[in-house]
This record gives sequence, C-alpha cells and structure tokens, in this order.
Amino acid sequence: MSSNDYTPLWQELGLDLDNHAGLLGVLSDAYRGIYLAQANRPRGMAYFDFVISEVHGLRIKEIYEAKRAGRKVVGGFCVYVPEEVVLAADGICIGLCAGAEVGTAEAERFIPRNSCALIKAFMGFKLAGLCPYVELTDLIVGETTCDGKKKAYEIFDELTGKVHVMELPHMKGPAGKRLWLGEVARFRETMEKLTGAPLTLEGLRHGVAVVNAKRRALQRLSRLREADPAPLSGLDALLVNQVSFYDDPVRFTAKTNELCDELEERVAAGVGVTAKGAPRLLVSGSPMAIPNWKVHAIVEGSGGVVVGEESCIGERNFRDLADEDFVTVEEGLMKIAERSLTIDCACFTPNDERPGNIAALCERLRADGIIHYALQFCTPYLVEAYKVETSLAGVPFLRIETDYSMEDFGQLKTRLEAFIEMLR
Amino acid sequence: MSSNDYTPLWQELGLDLDNHAGLLGVLSDAYRGIYLAQANRPRGMAYFDFVISEVHGLRIKEIYEAKRAGRKVVGGFCVYVPEEVVLAADGICIGLCAGAEVGTAEAERFIPRNSCALIKAFMGFKLAGLCPYVELTDLIVGETTCDGKKKAYEIFDELTGKVHVMELPHMKGPAGKRLWLGEVARFRETMEKLTGAPLTLEGLRHGVAVVNAKRRALQRLSRLREADPAPLSGLDALLVNQVSFYDDPVRFTAKTNELCDELEERVAAGVGVTAKGAPRLLVSGSPMAIPNWKVHAIVEGSGGVVVGEESCIGERNFRDLADEDFVTVEEGLMKIAERSLTIDCACFTPNDERPGNIAALCERLRADGIIHYALQFCTPYLVEAYKVETSLAGVPFLRIETDYSMEDFGQLKTRLEAFIEMLR
Ligand code: SF4
Ligand code: SF4
Ligand code: SF4
Ligand code: SF4
Repeated sequence: MSSNDYTPLWQELGLDLDNHAGLLGVLSDAYRGIYLAQANRPRGMAYFDFVISEVHGLRIKEIYEAKRAGRKVVGGFCVYVPEEVVLAADGICIGLCAGAEVGTAEAERFIPRNSCALIKAFMGFKLAGLCPYVELTDLIVGETTCDGKKKAYEIFDELTGKVHVMELPHMKGPAGKRLWLGEVARFRETMEKLTGAPLTLEGLRHGVAVVNAKRRALQRLSRLREADPAPLSGLDALLVNQVSFYDDPVRFTAKTNELCDELEERVAAGVGVTAKGAPRLLVSGSPMAIPNWKVHAIVEGSGGVVVGEESCIGERNFRDLADEDFVTVEEGLMKIAERSLTIDCACFTPNDERPGNIAALCERLRADGIIHYALQFCTPYLVEAYKVETSLAGVPFLRIETDYSMEDFGQLKTRLEAFIEMLR
Repeated sequence: MSSNDYTPLWQELGLDLDNHAGLLGVLSDAYRGIYLAQANRPRGMAYFDFVISEVHGLRIKEIYEAKRAGRKVVGGFCVYVPEEVVLAADGICIGLCAGAEVGTAEAERFIPRNSCALIKAFMGFKLAGLCPYVELTDLIVGETTCDGKKKAYEIFDELTGKVHVMELPHMKGPAGKRLWLGEVARFRETMEKLTGAPLTLEGLRHGVAVVNAKRRALQRLSRLREADPAPLSGLDALLVNQVSFYDDPVRFTAKTNELCDELEERVAAGVGVTAKGAPRLLVSGSPMAIPNWKVHAIVEGSGGVVVGEESCIGERNFRDLADEDFVTVEEGLMKIAERSLTIDCACFTPNDERPGNIAALCERLRADGIIHYALQFCTPYLVEAYKVETSLAGVPFLRIETDYSMEDFGQLKTRLEAFIEMLR
C-alpha cells in the first residue's frame, strides 16, 4: 500500500514476505472499501489515511531509525501499561493489539480455540511472521488482566524472550492500590535497566505532559462528537483512536488537534457526516484493535452514526488525565498509578464505576442507544454486560458478541439494522 | 435416595421440590450405574456410599441443626479459601462447586453460554432452586481466580446478598504475598463480624489441626494408590476427595483413615481393584466437582485405573500442610496464607511449580500416562496444558476438553480407549 519499497526492512525484521504482502493487500482493499468510500470526510482525515497507508512502512522505518539512534521500543496490550514511564525514559510505546483474523491456525497450536479474537490475533501475527512492531520491540509489557492474555503472555515470552508482566490487581481497595503502585515502581526499574539510565523528574514530567496532551486532543475529539449532526463518522473517530496507539504521540496530538479545528468549524456551520437526527449509537465493551472496523461499518452503512466508544480504544484510554503536579519521580509514579486505576475495566470486581460512566457518556453524547460489544470468549465484558444493561434500564440496549471473521456479517447487519430502525 | 423424608426441610430452604426430586433421581441412578456396579470395592467405601445417599438429606439436617445451635455456615468455591479460619470460628465450611449440568438455561440468562460447566452449574443450581447448601450458608466466599468465577460472583451476590470476595493475587512475588496475607486477615474480620466473637489462638490451632488431619488422611490415601495393583479405584478415590469438601471434617478424617487401614491390608496382600499391570493414569487439570465422574468412569470402564488427581479436588487440596507452629493468631494466619500460596493453580502467572509437581507425582504414583483434563472454556488450564505437556516430554500425554454433558461420551471413550491401549 505504500509508495516506497520497504521490503529489505521487512526482510531484516524477519517477516514472512509472502504472507505479509497478502496481509497488506487485504488491509488496503478493506480500507479502500470502508474508509475511502465514505462521503463528506473532513480534510484532516487525510493524515490518518496516510498513516494507515504507511502502517508497516514509514512508521516502521521511523521506529527502526530511532532504535538505531539508541531509543528503546516498548510494546503493550493494555491501557493500564504506563506509557508515561516509557516516554520518560525516551522510549517509544506501541500498542500491539491486533484486529485481524491472521495466523489463527498457528495461534491455535499454542492457545485454545476458545480464546478471544484479539489474543489469537496477536499470537497469530507473531507466529505467522507478520508483525514488524513486535519484531522491533526491546520489551513487551504484559499484565494480569484477563485469563486469556495473562496465560498467553507466558507463551509469548517463550516465543520472544522479552515479556515483562505487570501484576494488575483485580479489586480497587487500598491493598490493590498498593500492589499497583509497587508494580509501576518495578516497571520503572525495568525501564531503567533497559535504557541504562535513571528516570529523571524532568523526563517523567515530559512523559506525563506528552501523554496528557494526547489525551486532551482525544477528549476534544470526543466532545465534538456531541454535535448533531456528528461532524465526523464513527469509523473515522475509531481510526484516530486506533492510530493513537502507535503513532508518534506529539505529531499525533498536533494532527488530531488540527482535525478538531476543522470539526469545530463544521459544528459551527451545522455540517455533519449524516443528516441531523440520524440515530446515534454508543459502542461499549471490548476494545477494537486496528483493522477491526466491522461494527462501525455496519452501523454507518445502515443509517446510524457511532458517536462514542466506551472502550479502551476510546474513552477508557483518555477519559482521565494524570495529575501533573508532582515534585519527585516517586510522586509522579504515584500520580500515574492513581490515574490508571480510574480506568473502569471489566477485569476488576466489582467494576462499579462503569455503569455510571456509561450513563454519563450516553447523556453527554446524546446517544439514542447502546451497542454492547464483546469479543466472543471475552468473559469479563460478556458477564459485565448483565450489570450494565440492568443499570441502564430505559436506554435501548443491544448486546452483540462477535469475532474478527466476516462469517456473522449478515446476521450482525440484520440485528444492527433492526436496532437502528427501532431508534428512529 | 434417602430413607427419611426431608421434604419439609427442603421446602423450608425454598428448594423447587419437583426439580429437586428429578435431580436426586438422576443422581441416584448415576451412582448406582457407576459406583455400585464396581467390583471388588473395599468395605470402607460403604460410609461414602451412605454419605452420597444422604447428600441432600442427613448432612443438610446436620448443618441445619448446627445453624439453629448458633454455628455459622460458610460456602466456598476454591481451595485458596482458608477453611482453617472458618473452623477456628466454630463455623462449618462447605464446598459449593457443582458437577452436574443443571439449570443451564437459567444460568445463561446471567452469564455467557461460553462459561465453564462448573460456573454454569453453581449458578444453575442456585437459580433452579436445587442447592440446599447454598440456602444454608450465612456467608459465601468468592475469590478473584479465573475471569468466569470472579465476574459471576458479582451476580451471585445480587442473587444471594452474602458474597465476600477475597482478592487472590496472580503472581507469587513479595507484593502478591503481602496482598494475600492482608486478604486472609480481612477474612478473619469478616468471620468475627459474622460470629460476633473474636478469633482465638486456641480456635485457630484447632482449625489448623482439624484441616491438617484431614489433609494427612487424604495424603495417606494418595500414597496407598502408589501400589500396583491399585487397592482402590480412581472413581472411589475421587469420591472420597469430593466428599471431603462437605462432610464433617473430623468424621470424614476418621472414616478416610479407616478406609486407609483396610487399603493397607489390601496392599500387603497384593489385592487390588484391577489386575497388576493395568495402565495407570494421572488425571491433571480442572477440578471435578460431585457428580462429575465422567472421565474416571470411562477410563476404568476401559481397563485403565486412575491413580491420582492433580486437581483441586485431589492433590492440590492436601499436598501441603499448614505449619502448626505459631503462638499468636496473626502468626497463625500468616502460616495459613503461606500454605495456600503453595497451591499451584493455573490462575497464577507464571505457575512454574506445577510441571515439576506433576512430574514428581507421576513418578511417585508410577503413572504410565497423563490425561490433561480441562473444562471447556477453562482458559487457565487450557493454556497451561501447553507448558505442562512440553515440560513433561516423554510422558504419554492426552489432552481432553469437555463439559458435564454426555454428548461427547462416545468420542471421549474412543480417545481414552486408544490412549490406554497405547500404554499397555
Ligand atoms: S479492556 Fe481491560 S484488559 Fe483490555 S486493554 Fe482495556 S483495560 Fe486492558
Ligand atoms: S477482549 Fe476481553 S478476552 Fe480479549 S484480551 Fe481483551 S479483556 Fe481479554
Ligand atoms: S483450580 Fe484454581 S480457582 Fe479452581 S478451585 Fe483450584 S485453586 Fe481455586
Ligand atoms: S474450571 Fe477453570 S474456568 Fe471453571 S471455575 Fe475453575 S478455574 Fe474457572
């Protein structure tokens, strides 16, 4: 999909060139069919289109060159992993979650068939030699969130030899907070060992400032989606959120703010991607890693518009900022740990904040209905759907459980269309 | 199945009498077909046969009467829950795991179809009004082990209003140990609030002594299974282990030791339940709650003999004793917490002790092969099977993944028969 020839680089990273060419072809076709076919897109999306077209090209080259210049590359799978600490150590932080059905057969040699699609995909991408990001990492950070990831990291470590697991507590009492603070401190040590340099207060302030700025830009984008008509499609907003996990954060923030400037003009002029009054949907649940665009594509192909993602690739990633008011590294780490514990992941029990957060989001975004999205076998979100639904009595609520395949596309489309029709 | 009429008691406990009668009928038939049909059983099994015949009768009446006399009843689902502390508070501790496919439709209103059979069963038993034990409990103790249980407890608490969740760490470093020690101390407070009396050193010593004695009896039983021919069927040994979770512990220990006396004579006389040289199997993995006898029944109906259960209903429950050498309640709680952290559950990451423990057990029991048993959707054990298998290179190893239904009986039988044939 890219204009330059990155083949030598991919070869050097040990990718399987044939498989990889196939993957890029499929991705490029999907992108063209889903994204470029949209009408009335803001000009500011051109940057994100470019980023996607260079997803295994220019960005890989950038990271490769940064690595040669001595910077460390850290991959992660979860928003609890403190990106601020990676940036504080002048590292590059990359999300490794994968959203395509790739390498399934290879993955199933190691993990059960009944694993969620996201886990199968990150295992499959690695095993099929398709992920340049994994190959570029100096460190991969896992966490004890769900059973599937927690146990898959053991095998991922056998395969890569570079996994550091952070123990995330499962309850938010004082003991859990202490545990997590200790884990953030232990991660700092791991980063210091990796870089060979102590973390400085200045570095940490920089890291927090950069990530907070990124979160503020994403918050701004989220607020602009409150308008009716929505100035941006859910598909495009999802893409921006997905790109936030692997683009350079400073550039990403600038480009997202540029997009927001344009969207502000649209809102002021009453310009949107749909007609005013189109049914507005909040998608809530499991994360949607790139290129998992299925639900948004169906909703927006059926006359609805997705106005928010109550998801880790979405609100959970940027809702709260870290407190920038600290005077020692230790205090900074505490602020970072405290912020991450405001994240309302279903891995926690109970996860009492989530229903209230969803209700508030639903109101702010003026959503007409909620699509509770769970990847098949994602037990935390599948079980929590019950509490979310009962707590939101009155809000139209549709539960869907799906994976990355296109097999259920027709069935999902039928259900989503009927739901959207009901909201008109 | 029982000789007395417990109907008024069941009614008082709010059971669904029709469903319940059906359940007891099925259980009784299964027991007759699987257990009573065995040849050459030790006399000492008569006690356990009786216990099963009174599983919802005499034992329920005993507990009911103990409750009226002021004792508290605590139910649990996991061997990390410190039974010693319950006994120290003069409580009755009952395992609530269920091994029958019951109330599935009711359970699936709350939890996903893709939940393991054990979780569906404990939800189903409650929802279908079939479990007198749940109704008798004053407190139900959950734990943050696997995703499915952890999240299901939230709903179980909505249904019963009496769930206390203990946060089990997922890594065994110093921070995890501290967390768990704190949780055991918090559980002590919960028990004190429940009984209205402080836990005493004397009480705790008694609790530890009683549970250790039970563990010693079960260890003795396990050692007797080393003999060839095995003096006891795997089915009967499994039953003894299952009964250990709800019988009165002192009586249970005495009866198990009586059984062991008899088995010692058998071993001395070279008497067994099979011919010498029958293929010896170790079953390893997810727990088998009563009446989940499927795999043992197939193996022993196919000429093999199960000589051990590397399982929580098995070795994981009794392998290690708590240190009885403590002089304060706090020290006692620490000893209890330390012992439970020797348990090698796949919920931990990494769970490095387990492969070595299996290898040692395999050698001690002179097992010819390992059947790795995982309930379908039991992600921790399903993923860990890979590490177990690769670490035990050379030992014949068969992975099975099943549930409580009889649908896969034929297929399982074919696979297990072929495996046993190979070991001859
Ligand atoms: S859903 Fe939970 S486990 Fe997954 S990325 Fe978000 S916080 Fe992490
Ligand atoms: S989607 Fe669910 S099951 Fe999959 S990795 Fe995330 S939390 Fe785990
Ligand atoms: S398998 Fe693990 S979670 Fe289940 S009872 Fe055993 S220790 Fe507890
Ligand atoms: S069998 Fe596995 S999935 Fe089921 S409750 Fe036990 S640990 Fe959880």
